[in-house]
Amino acid sequence: MRQPLPGHGASRGNALGRARVRLPHALDVLEEHIAADAVDAELAKLHAAIDTVRGEMRDLRERLHGALAHEVGEFLDLHTLLLDDPELLQGLDDLIRTGRYSADYALRLQRDRLAAVFAGMDDAYFRSRVDDIDQVIGRIHAALHRRDVGAKGTSGEILVTDNVAPAEIAQLQAQGVVAIVTSAGSVLSHSAILARSLHLPLVVGAAQALQRINDGDVLMVDGGNGELIVEPDAADLRSYRARVRELARERKQLYRLRREPARTVDGIDIKLYANAESREDVAEAHALGSAGIGLYRTEFLFLQRNEVPDEEEQFRAYRDVVLGMTGRTVTIRTLDLGADKADRTGLVMSDEPNPALGVRGVRLSLSRQALFETQLRAIVRASGYGPVRVLVPMVSCREEVVAVRKLLKRVIRDLNSSGHEIADHIPLGAMIEVPAAAIALPSFIGAVDFLSVGTNDLVQYLLAADRNNEALADLYSPLHPAVMRLLHAIIRTAHMRGKPVAVCGEMAGDAVFTPLLLSLGLTEFSLHPATLLEVRKAVRECDLADLRKRSSALLRARDREAIERWMHS
Amino acid sequence: MRQPLPGHGASRGNALGRARVRLPHALDVLEEHIAADAVDAELAKLHAAIDTVRGEMRDLRERLHGALAHEVGEFLDLHTLLLDDPELLQGLDDLIRTGRYSADYALRLQRDRLAAVFAGMDDAYFRSRVDDIDQVIGRIHAALHRRDVGAKGTSGEILVTDNVAPAEIAQLQAQGVVAIVTSAGSVLSHSAILARSLHLPLVVGAAQALQRINDGDVLMVDGGNGELIVEPDAADLRSYRARVRELARERKQLYRLRREPARTVDGIDIKLYANAESREDVAEAHALGSAGIGLYRTEFLFLQRNEVPDEEEQFRAYRDVVLGMTGRTVTIRTLDLGADKADRTGLVMSDEPNPALGVRGVRLSLSRQALFETQLRAIVRASGYGPVRVLVPMVSCREEVVAVRKLLKRVIRDLNSSGHEIADHIPLGAMIEVPAAAIALPSFIGAVDFLSVGTNDLVQYLLAADRNNEALADLYSPLHPAVMRLLHAIIRTAHMRGKPVAVCGEMAGDAVFTPLLLSLGLTEFSLHPATLLEVRKAVRECDLADLRKRSSALLRARDREAIERWMHS
Repeated sequence: MRQPLPGHGASRGNALGRARVRLPHALDVLEEHIAADAVDAELAKLHAAIDTVRGEMRDLRERLHGALAHEVGEFLDLHTLLLDDPELLQGLDDLIRTGRYSADYALRLQRDRLAAVFAGMDDAYFRSRVDDIDQVIGRIHAALHRRDVGAKGTSGEILVTDNVAPAEIAQLQAQGVVAIVTSAGSVLSHSAILARSLHLPLVVGAAQALQRINDGDVLMVDGGNGELIVEPDAADLRSYRARVRELARERKQLYRLRREPARTVDGIDIKLYANAESREDVAEAHALGSAGIGLYRTEFLFLQRNEVPDEEEQFRAYRDVVLGMTGRTVTIRTLDLGADKADRTGLVMSDEPNPALGVRGVRLSLSRQALFETQLRAIVRASGYGPVRVLVPMVSCREEVVAVRKLLKRVIRDLNSSGHEIADHIPLGAMIEVPAAAIALPSFIGAVDFLSVGTNDLVQYLLAADRNNEALADLYSPLHPAVMRLLHAIIRTAHMRGKPVAVCGEMAGDAVFTPLLLSLGLTEFSLHPATLLEVRKAVRECDLADLRKRSSALLRARDREAIERWMHS
Repeated sequence: MRQPLPGHGASRGNALGRARVRLPHALDVLEEHIAADAVDAELAKLHAAIDTVRGEMRDLRERLHGALAHEVGEFLDLHTLLLDDPELLQGLDDLIRTGRYSADYALRLQRDRLAAVFAGMDDAYFRSRVDDIDQVIGRIHAALHRRDVGAKGTSGEILVTDNVAPAEIAQLQAQGVVAIVTSAGSVLSHSAILARSLHLPLVVGAAQALQRINDGDVLMVDGGNGELIVEPDAADLRSYRARVRELARERKQLYRLRREPARTVDGIDIKLYANAESREDVAEAHALGSAGIGLYRTEFLFLQRNEVPDEEEQFRAYRDVVLGMTGRTVTIRTLDLGADKADRTGLVMSDEPNPALGVRGVRLSLSRQALFETQLRAIVRASGYGPVRVLVPMVSCREEVVAVRKLLKRVIRDLNSSGHEIADHIPLGAMIEVPAAAIALPSFIGAVDFLSVGTNDLVQYLLAADRNNEALADLYSPLHPAVMRLLHAIIRTAHMRGKPVAVCGEMAGDAVFTPLLLSLGLTEFSLHPATLLEVRKAVRECDLADLRKRSSALLRARDREAIERWMHS
């Protein structure tokens, strides 16, 4: 029976599909025994489910590319290990064979047993395995039940759940989930920001969703206005199709903007650079008329392989990006590996209790001079093919910039004297993502040529809140008075000293934040090409003079609510 | 033969003892086989060493108290687990029995084997076990060799090594090490700060120490002037005894300061509060004439036990502190548990990849209202016995302060209406240790009555550098321009709004930093009673007017070197 449910639109887009309900405690199954002659069939069912999960994880691993491959890949590798753990598997078999439990209940018992073992340990990282076990057993459980209803995979389904973690969003989309509905959550949460950047429709705050929606119900979701209809009728489907057509028209109109300037209503040109890490990103950035590449990530060259790429391989990769941008500026970020983006080449320290506060970015590069020099040589050689800038991640003090400048100068001198054709000037910039660098900017801005503000990490460190920690999803937010003040101060200092400054974090790629960033004085954005046209559209709807007038009100906002009020006024 | 070696004095105090040399790679032993009939003796030797280590760890666990128990205890628990790991032990036995290897070489093989297994794993926290295995095997190795030379324990020894991690310092002292000599290291490193606060003599930068000193050599160490003599002669011993007497005299003079005010040369009174967490700390703080307790840590009530303390138990503990301070102000910090100070009561989340950026302090308290209310009730009830202030850790935004204030008001109303005798006014303060709170201070200072700056965590977050990560020991430093600017801004904002502000991190308790903090405008310090008199002495040698005049030079310093120059000028 048709049933509309209220919610809040958090990520635009429309979807129609069957519901997959994920209850907060899906594994609360009751004790269930099976007959002696059913044991073999039950074991076969369980093993088939485990095989399915193994296959799913392998498929997923292969389908991932770019940034997702690093972030999600690590979890997958660990879960694949757990899935092959003889203790886990043998325990399940024993429970079914000896205890005559159903596969469902055996999973629950085994989960509780392992959880108790790990939870009882004093060391935090042993205890943390509980969550991984939960996830692996949850996957097997889900696979068992997909077999039951005869479905295969999750493609085309709409996930209905209480809340969704930022880390899950990309994975769910890769699994084929076409929209997400959550009973809790906020429009400005990290998960919502991520869903928007991935164009995955999301409705949050649908308080009754878990009570009213059953597995397999047909759902109609409008992530723009938060509309949610269970078992839509003919009229709903008509309006759905009309809405989809309208969105296609909008997208077409948006696409026309690729040739238009990012110019505000009052005629000020804003530079929109692209973040890129693949050939496809570069091609898209070029086609959509980006001002250049504002952030080219080089980690993909180092991840998922066993040896470090040599100068020639790096040079060719960077040169292709420069050629692909046909004379527009390409900003190449030096290696930003860290224990949270672990590699297989042994570069990254593995024993860090807080990897986000560890040996990352320029810290790692400066501790591995030969490696760093190879990368700088490759970048400098690419400058013979078009304008190149070098961007250094995780800078926290003047000393680091001075050390990099010295090395870069030597590399340029060496390449010049060995007859390479390189650019006359290669600007050196610093990522501003460590709070100390932001606060002490006047002390070292003289040593750099340009800046790029990494708001994702900056916000994480400012708030001392891990941006991937689900329990802090409400706390981690760029909408904090300290973020407003610091961004304003960084931009003002840079402009006063005549140094270009861009923001390259997720904020820059979300049109929701465009007026706010313009109000704080920002004139350069760097964002993934996927949202470039939306942000360009937002820029073209802004009156800069008016926004600048309103900046003092923004800087006076004393809490998140006040900033949200400013955004909605 | 007598041999003086140059070094830098990093922590005052004199010591005379035998050298224990710890080479960077102590486990590089050569392949060594034993005869068939020596197998049993070798096994017995190994098992005796393992038993020794087990006993040492148990002893150490029992001797630890207070903050050390939390920090070091976790490692010990994990290592005790590893020490009982059948895979580790059986592997060693097999190598000796079947492979006829010496115990030494078996340890090395087993270490390499396990390290290879863990290092090959993709997940960071599996890989991180390598270090723990290294440490456990290193302990067994050390125990084997102590047996060989007939020594027992490390009591009275002077450790000679390349570098020492902050996390080791307390543990080494607890093991009986009387001084440390390192070939590398800096006087202003985190390790040096810690050694000074523990009164453990430390000489750093003794470049030739590892080449010139052998295990068992007699050493004479002066941590004040960095003097280091191998095999001292009679004249040296005379001067050593004279120096020890002189230090005793100095200590006596220092002790006379307990009745003197912390007044600068130009007659300004500075308030020195004490950090405390035990009955002994409180008694010492009182006897040494502290202005009150500036930071009373309540974690010890919750750690190393299986259930949360009830209101009555907490009330009695807090009341005793208030009574012990006879009318001086007692500042009680609400619970500051986090995954880095894990408990056994299940309060703390265990699955955090970056516990330092996790659910800590007020975040945990606000997510467990009933628990928090119980603590606030106990604190408020203690206010009937003397002046009490409530201090909230890990505040990052106005919203948190408002929520705590609301809860505190309700608790006061409830206790008043049920006839409890409580103070008319209980000031509420915020720890400033999250950068966002420091930067956005003007937005919420109106909601608090006082402030306490936790420089240890503040510096860690500002620099995005884990203060317990040895690889970042050089980077983690309060001597960063951003720290100077931010401390200055916090103090100025607080004073402008008439709110008391203290610094309660390690900086406050190290007399090396006293002039610097006074120059930044600080008038209240909170520090462990152990260094209270030294800081009082330093205050009494400062001319505040002169220091304040020099503050603009301090704020202009553009790097660490410039700040160090300021300190030494």
